Amino acid sequence: MGKHLLVELHGCQADLLKKVEYVRDTLLGAARACRATIIDSSFHEFSPFGVSGVVVIAESHLSIHTWPEYRYAAVDIFTCGEVIKPEEAVDYIGTRFRCRNPSVVEMKRGVIPGHVGKLPHKVAAQGVKAAQGVRDAHQELSLVY
Amino acid sequence: MGKHLLVELHGCQADLLKKVEYVRDTLLGAARACRATIIDSSFHEFSPFGVSGVVVIAESHLSIHTWPEYRYAAVDIFTCGEVIKPEEAVDYIGTRFRCRNPSVVEMKRGVIPGHVGKLPHKVAAQGVKAAQGVRDAHQELSLVY
Repeated sequence: MGKHLLVELHGCQADLLKKVEYVRDTLLGAARACRATIIDSSFHEFSPFGVSGVVVIAESHLSIHTWPEYRYAAVDIFTCGEVIKPEEAVDYIGTRFRCRNPSVVEMKRGVIPGHVGKLPHKVAAQGVKAAQGVRDAHQELSLVY
Repeated sequence: MGKHLLVELHGCQADLLKKVEYVRDTLLGAARACRATIIDSSFHEFSPFGVSGVVVIAESHLSIHTWPEYRYAAVDIFTCGEVIKPEEAVDYIGTRFRCRNPSVVEMKRGVIPGHVGKLPHKVAAQGVKAAQGVRDAHQELSLVY
């Protein structure tokens, strides 16, 4: 199965939620903090303020949407496999946004009838084939473990 | 508040979950089906099989992870604003993957104390400022409404 943490961050420091660079660095740092393998990321800053972003990891994804005007951010950390420690990503993000009490709901995804154990994550030694959607570009990523 | 649908798709047609192009077209089609404004997308095909992808929309995001070997896909549809109809995206995806009974859990995100109504989505007339993370490239997107 996959492990999906839905993280509600209220009471953040508002200005930290406004800058796309800071939000991006936070989510990429969180991915590293939980030992994920980063494949790609996409972050966007909106007017008048607010940031949305996703980090695709070999073990699924992290996402964030910020509403600085409400000092609020919604974060999702969806992971699979045995190695990842998503709780460490939550701690990292909470610290970066000065959020004292992130609330976390854990959802189990992909409970397969008759299957015992966790769903495998998707890293394969021979590399990862990547396709970019609206950018209409293809690239090959070679990952070394 | 934001509306977050966690969609479990069991019993899909396995070969439809394997091809990154088909999965990407499905998720982009789903975004259009629910009238979302597509900002960016990123899809990746793994070895031996499985696809992960995200579509960043002005109203938040859609994501998917597929395990063809279990005929299973996990989809998230996170939207905000008044216009989007995420249920139509669920119907679209279920049909594309030949999944007869998608199960859907709805989570309300960003319930702000004292705030009445839904969180605004982030589209602004003056355009959207975009920053790409690990690709380390910046671009300006001009959206017309």
